[in-house]
Amino acid sequence: MNNGTFITFEGPDGAGKTTIISMVAEKLNHALLTREPGGIDIAEQIRRVILDKENTAMDPRTEALLYAAARRQHLIERVKPALEAGRDVLCDRFVDSSLAYQGYARGLGIDEVWSINQFAVENLMPELTIYFDIEPELGLTRINKNKGREINRLDLENLEFHHKVRKGYHLLLDRFPERIVKIDASGTVDEVFKKTLQIVEKKLAEK
Amino acid sequence: MNNGTFITFEGPDGAGKTTIISMVAEKLNHALLTREPGGIDIAEQIRRVILDKENTAMDPRTEALLYAAARRQHLIERVKPALEAGRDVLCDRFVDSSLAYQGYARGLGIDEVWSINQFAVENLMPELTIYFDIEPELGLTRINKNKGREINRLDLENLEFHHKVRKGYHLLLDRFPERIVKIDASGTVDEVFKKTLQIVEKKLAEK
Repeated sequence: MNNGTFITFEGPDGAGKTTIISMVAEKLNHALLTREPGGIDIAEQIRRVILDKENTAMDPRTEALLYAAARRQHLIERVKPALEAGRDVLCDRFVDSSLAYQGYARGLGIDEVWSINQFAVENLMPELTIYFDIEPELGLTRINKNKGREINRLDLENLEFHHKVRKGYHLLLDRFPERIVKIDASGTVDEVFKKTLQIVEKKLAEK
Repeated sequence: MNNGTFITFEGPDGAGKTTIISMVAEKLNHALLTREPGGIDIAEQIRRVILDKENTAMDPRTEALLYAAARRQHLIERVKPALEAGRDVLCDRFVDSSLAYQGYARGLGIDEVWSINQFAVENLMPELTIYFDIEPELGLTRINKNKGREINRLDLENLEFHHKVRKGYHLLLDRFPERIVKIDASGTVDEVFKKTLQIVEKKLAEK
């Protein structure tokens, strides 16, 4: 076995996740940076069913099963072949997003959503997951700054939801302490990047 | 609670299943006869992804998750409202098809496929499942007779698969003896129909 290392990144929008992962990927030799559905045809078809604005009748469990299905296909067609070719894989969101958002914040249950994701992922769980932790208020301020607008009523409603998502991620930290590492994402991009790179390089050096 | 009764029907093609169910439905007062995806828009969209001939790269686990997703949506939009309105529901194939075909015959594992179907079905399992049991050779002879053709090489390959499906159903009979009733489907349509109607009416009378 000369497999690459599978690393996933989690956290809310506004934590700087996507920016940081790109910077990490650039520092690594020949790593694959991906996120679902990632241009994988079957996964894209499934994602279109999930996101279609006409599909207002979609049940939350149907949605969770569809996310798991798209995850499986992206994993088999993109992540697995790269790992087997010896490439490290950095994936922007993975099972923990489903567990924190659908399982905890939307109330389906972490155990329930974990059961269908175990089926989807089988033996291909990440060896390391980095969770970018941030106060929802600060994340929201950053997003609005990027969009050049003030906090509005809808934002405040969303804040309550994002507090739940954060609580969900914190429950996952307790549940998977060997896999998930929390990074404080309230600092500057450069600070967060340095911490992230350090943890990633330490994991890669273990092999 | 004044709910209708949820009854599902299982077995291979060639067992006469679809014919018999229609005859049973006609005898019952105001029962809903349905099968997935049953014209439910989201379930139909999912089924199109499953059946698309271009999707040759589809992983068996992706497929099983998509079947479970379509099942959930059909259940929530069609079966559940009918039961709540006091109608009895007769469904042509349900979870046991996934367990026998994907779980056992295709080798994904009955336990594994059952776990995602439990998530999909939640607390809406059928109160009665009628399984039409038939020797695969006899089922095949009936199908070919309908199509006016002889048994060919491909049929013989398929026979091996259909023996596995039957073994899968027999394992489910052992596992869910309180829910699943086996009917010998080798007799005439009239014989099988009479037995089926008797079992269905007995279940409905229990309420």
